Amino acid sequence: MGDLGDTGGVEALPDTMAVSVLRGVHDVILERRPVPTPAPDEVLVRVHSVGTCGSDVHYYEHGRIGDFVVEQPLVLGHEPSGVVVARGASATRHDIGTRVALEPGVPCSHCAECRLGRYNLCPRMRFFGTPPIDGAFCEFVTLREDFAHPVPEALSDDAAGLLEPLSVGVWACRKARVGPGSRVLVTGAGPIGLVAAQTARAFGATEVVVTDVNSGRLRVAAELGATATIDVSTTDLAESGFEPDVLLECSGVAAAAAQAIRRVGRAGRVVLVGMGGDEIPLPLAHVQGFEVEVTGTFRYANTWPTAIALAAGSEIDLDRLVTHRFGLAEVEQALTVARHDETVIKAVVRPQETIHG
Amino acid sequence: MGDLGDTGGVEALPDTMAVSVLRGVHDVILERRPVPTPAPDEVLVRVHSVGTCGSDVHYYEHGRIGDFVVEQPLVLGHEPSGVVVARGASATRHDIGTRVALEPGVPCSHCAECRLGRYNLCPRMRFFGTPPIDGAFCEFVTLREDFAHPVPEALSDDAAGLLEPLSVGVWACRKARVGPGSRVLVTGAGPIGLVAAQTARAFGATEVVVTDVNSGRLRVAAELGATATIDVSTTDLAESGFEPDVLLECSGVAAAAAQAIRRVGRAGRVVLVGMGGDEIPLPLAHVQGFEVEVTGTFRYANTWPTAIALAAGSEIDLDRLVTHRFGLAEVEQALTVARHDETVIKAVVRPQETIHG
Amino acid sequence: MGDLGDTGGVEALPDTMAVSVLRGVHDVILERRPVPTPAPDEVLVRVHSVGTCGSDVHYYEHGRIGDFVVEQPLVLGHEPSGVVVARGASATRHDIGTRVALEPGVPCSHCAECRLGRYNLCPRMRFFGTPPIDGAFCEFVTLREDFAHPVPEALSDDAAGLLEPLSVGVWACRKARVGPGSRVLVTGAGPIGLVAAQTARAFGATEVVVTDVNSGRLRVAAELGATATIDVSTTDLAESGFEPDVLLECSGVAAAAAQAIRRVGRAGRVVLVGMGGDEIPLPLAHVQGFEVEVTGTFRYANTWPTAIALAAGSEIDLDRLVTHRFGLAEVEQALTVARHDETVIKAVVRPQETIHG
Amino acid sequence: MGDLGDTGGVEALPDTMAVSVLRGVHDVILERRPVPTPAPDEVLVRVHSVGTCGSDVHYYEHGRIGDFVVEQPLVLGHEPSGVVVARGASATRHDIGTRVALEPGVPCSHCAECRLGRYNLCPRMRFFGTPPIDGAFCEFVTLREDFAHPVPEALSDDAAGLLEPLSVGVWACRKARVGPGSRVLVTGAGPIGLVAAQTARAFGATEVVVTDVNSGRLRVAAELGATATIDVSTTDLAESGFEPDVLLECSGVAAAAAQAIRRVGRAGRVVLVGMGGDEIPLPLAHVQGFEVEVTGTFRYANTWPTAIALAAGSEIDLDRLVTHRFGLAEVEQALTVARHDETVIKAVVRPQETIHG
Repeated sequence: MGDLGDTGGVEALPDTMAVSVLRGVHDVILERRPVPTPAPDEVLVRVHSVGTCGSDVHYYEHGRIGDFVVEQPLVLGHEPSGVVVARGASATRHDIGTRVALEPGVPCSHCAECRLGRYNLCPRMRFFGTPPIDGAFCEFVTLREDFAHPVPEALSDDAAGLLEPLSVGVWACRKARVGPGSRVLVTGAGPIGLVAAQTARAFGATEVVVTDVNSGRLRVAAELGATATIDVSTTDLAESGFEPDVLLECSGVAAAAAQAIRRVGRAGRVVLVGMGGDEIPLPLAHVQGFEVEVTGTFRYANTWPTAIALAAGSEIDLDRLVTHRFGLAEVEQALTVARHDETVIKAVVRPQETIHG
Repeated sequence: MGDLGDTGGVEALPDTMAVSVLRGVHDVILERRPVPTPAPDEVLVRVHSVGTCGSDVHYYEHGRIGDFVVEQPLVLGHEPSGVVVARGASATRHDIGTRVALEPGVPCSHCAECRLGRYNLCPRMRFFGTPPIDGAFCEFVTLREDFAHPVPEALSDDAAGLLEPLSVGVWACRKARVGPGSRVLVTGAGPIGLVAAQTARAFGATEVVVTDVNSGRLRVAAELGATATIDVSTTDLAESGFEPDVLLECSGVAAAAAQAIRRVGRAGRVVLVGMGGDEIPLPLAHVQGFEVEVTGTFRYANTWPTAIALAAGSEIDLDRLVTHRFGLAEVEQALTVARHDETVIKAVVRPQETIHG
Repeated sequence: MGDLGDTGGVEALPDTMAVSVLRGVHDVILERRPVPTPAPDEVLVRVHSVGTCGSDVHYYEHGRIGDFVVEQPLVLGHEPSGVVVARGASATRHDIGTRVALEPGVPCSHCAECRLGRYNLCPRMRFFGTPPIDGAFCEFVTLREDFAHPVPEALSDDAAGLLEPLSVGVWACRKARVGPGSRVLVTGAGPIGLVAAQTARAFGATEVVVTDVNSGRLRVAAELGATATIDVSTTDLAESGFEPDVLLECSGVAAAAAQAIRRVGRAGRVVLVGMGGDEIPLPLAHVQGFEVEVTGTFRYANTWPTAIALAAGSEIDLDRLVTHRFGLAEVEQALTVARHDETVIKAVVRPQETIHG
Repeated sequence: MGDLGDTGGVEALPDTMAVSVLRGVHDVILERRPVPTPAPDEVLVRVHSVGTCGSDVHYYEHGRIGDFVVEQPLVLGHEPSGVVVARGASATRHDIGTRVALEPGVPCSHCAECRLGRYNLCPRMRFFGTPPIDGAFCEFVTLREDFAHPVPEALSDDAAGLLEPLSVGVWACRKARVGPGSRVLVTGAGPIGLVAAQTARAFGATEVVVTDVNSGRLRVAAELGATATIDVSTTDLAESGFEPDVLLECSGVAAAAAQAIRRVGRAGRVVLVGMGGDEIPLPLAHVQGFEVEVTGTFRYANTWPTAIALAAGSEIDLDRLVTHRFGLAEVEQALTVARHDETVIKAVVRPQETIHG
């Protein structure tokens, strides 16, 4: 493979690699494809860990998310970490052998949104595992070098991959202006709710209340730093008396969102992170009378440096989220295990390992 | 009246005054009451002009707005201007004879919201013409001296009163971060929409598109600086192709608001100014995918200095809004004229004048 | 003392109290004065702990700070905590017996600065221990009730008093926009530098480098969370290679400030907290080329809630700063001990105790 | 010239062009060079107007500005406008024939600063007429397509070029948070001061006071919208009593800057735009006591859309600044005319015209 660019003389790279491909609803196969060649400003990364995300599951089960439709074979997976094994002609940022977390969406960098620093809103964004862009459920991927972020030894491979959901939490907390002393309500204790709660604590929030209908998840929330939890299958949120400064809506349930918004205090902020449903019924009198600010998040921008700094400290525990691990041949199990096992928080795929089979 | 404090020796004040009182739905009478005595930090103001507002009309017609219920006789009117005629023992800010615009809500100044500068969110706010606080449809009112704002000669009495709705526009434009080059959509060309459009221009917006179903009002909008108008009774907003940075929702129609929110561009801001209906159906995918920020306004804070500076210049024309004038005996006509006359934009009450009767 | 207002029937209050009075340079005596009577919106507080501050020492040694001149007997002390023992007629916020930290400056609440929420810039501020306003080196003080902040049990009396210097740190970190992942340089490891460093950590800063010329203080800085320290008596700051996002200048040494500013990275922020010298030579090319923002702090606004939330957690250790305690008869020792003892960080005065004498 | 990319079939392009080259101090010649070929993401622009700037004059007279040294022949000129005449293979943004203003600095778009939207701070910025990057005193230039901004018919070629200094004013006003009702002091009525004053007005400032020692320039300032002017050769700024919210320092005179900073009111902002001298003596007590914010500007980011919107309206008059025009053979005169003629505000070079010679 003479055209892989600079491989640092460290190791011989194979010509082909294993790739897990989604061909349609409930149809995943393992293929061999050529190892990709990095463009001049890209690196080639050997993938060590890739978290699975609810959107991966959704594509697997429905073949689409809104306007994004799987019309040709697609590689899923957008929470990857790995090691730089080669680099393009002008890529000088990372040495071969550098452990990196991959920020999985590369914008055009030239449009008005990109120039303003809001690159997550770039209309020409190319995002891993979103049709028609392939993701990271494979042995090697290429990426523009500035989207590969070196990680310290303190972070495990799995944790490095989970900087992606942590970035969702960081972005939500920034949008919500969480800060020292904030009182935060997190609705939903799925993986995103659990990172959002931890992130809020790391941003200085002194009260972080998490709600869910799953008591097991609420126990994990408490373990990870929530100062209180509410099982909304048995307790009415309104009766808790909690009036947060900030609501991080991570449940994706419109009715829950609408109810929670009514609890937010004066000049409070609501960030809609969870997806689900077409419309949220916004309580006008409350939003006006308390001047509540409501927004939503679309991915993230400029979050990896912060996420790495936080995850390298003691306040964020990403490894705790990993409950299941699978090999590349087991992507389908990784995407379905949550259906049958309530204890799943986050399943990760380890492309370099044959774990069960 | 020896206890009026310092009247500057300028004029003798009467002991009693005429007051227009709302006793119930469709029940307004003219009474005589004692001229009030200013507290130590207050001034006594002879009222020269008071704009009528949709909320005055609403109290007149329904006896309530949401949780605010007229349970005892109430003086309406919260858009007043006048002249300082006396002052309390410690009130030194204004000379007797100073022409002032009155900011009609006085907060406690000691609660957390007040201390943070968000005094419009003070839970102990005392606001003119909102039960159980009396307003300004009378000959004299008292007010804490820092809520009486001196106005330049260039402003008419009516315009000085209309600094109150202008403040609504200033506050909305601040919340929306309207600035030089902004592209703004204003839905609704009532008095608030018309001041919001003018304010947006004064904040530097270079495109201000106003929508309404009333072609007469749209003509006024164009006259006052809107760069385009859309009659949404005949033209679909979506077909206009206009993608604003900012939506100032001034119609109070939930369906119009929901439709307009979908037009807002990336990282755009929506400020819900108009009141009406319980819930706005918030389009989740658009709010998330474009990271649109949505908030509402509740009155205003710290707006009079800006409003005065703008109104004293050439960019804002408040007098153009005044289409009808009434005396204190004619408050009922002022509150009902809009029902029967489509040309009404703003009716003002002139307590010192006997206009028709 | 029938006019003390509501004392809750809890305890009999004395008629007079001991007060430590500064009569001039190096002239402090203990007097007896009447226990003050709270105004209607005030509480009477029995003082339990008062930190000493460099400005107290400065008044003691020089009789002035800038334009503030001690022209009549003055009570120093502005870092007090205590217990509410009585309240004025309209003061309802605190029960008798509530432990409180006192925010020692009460603004007018009516001027433009106050109304904007920047009450620390109020030109009519009345600040404890600043001529001609008396401070808290005495047994009882009165204060507007909203400036007495209840503190949780977890905070000691001394720590409650030291919320005042912590507020300086909170304000500096807010002005500097310290946040998760920030890299912060703190110049000077005196009491303010030590709280600033801790606060920066609590705001999420992941690198906090502290400089001083006193190795003992640097050891305390490291113990309290600094990630690195530099003894600038032996090591050139420039050689450290550290390029902070934020400089919190707490040394009050103009040359040190100027040198440190040159180290600040692109779009970095500099907050000048330390006082000393008339002018700082601002390096123009660096400030322009890197668009560094430079500002200074004047006390604080709206910081106690945040300071309490942080101090009640595990991240801020205020008690560690207290190295010496004195009774009210020993204020002079408290103000001079730092001169003779390098181990002093913070001396506190305990007005209810006879500690040494 | 078959390799110019897509020229739209509109016109034949020459192979060579005239270029004005600075070879050293006081050494400018006219050369012929090949017309450059646009890279894939670039356009080729026929240059119609290029403003001259103080930095061009400085390179001509001194051969350097700070660390930027003219070590090889350099083409000056960074205020260009023109027409797109060809485009690279992937450049699709502009049609051939589009009139454009050129933003003269192209950043790397991949570094941390660029990704944050602060691309003016990109350490790999390539800026026209700054060693070793050639500028626009020539007939044709290439530029990345997103740095060529289409301009409306309402803007003259000269005005389109002068969007560059206008951008300096826009950036300064943004940094200073100039807004509706702001009171602004502009020190220095050179070209930058004159655009800054106009920009401040367009941002809504209602008082804009301009100072200079040149009464002719002050007359132009008044003509362009300054609400007052002060000739500081005869009048002490302090005596004016003017206390601005914002100081835009455009004189580059350290003593003037230091004096003006002392005039700035509470919570005011100072933006140091003018260059000159190594250090500004920052008045510490004033900066702290009034919490004044001080920063400097380095070029601009994301300003052209705003500048175009403002210049296309009636509030900004760029053509008024143009007092002299020269051909490409007369660059030396353009750079020296200001030395001998006090009436010069802005000299522009018109590369397509033979004006005097």
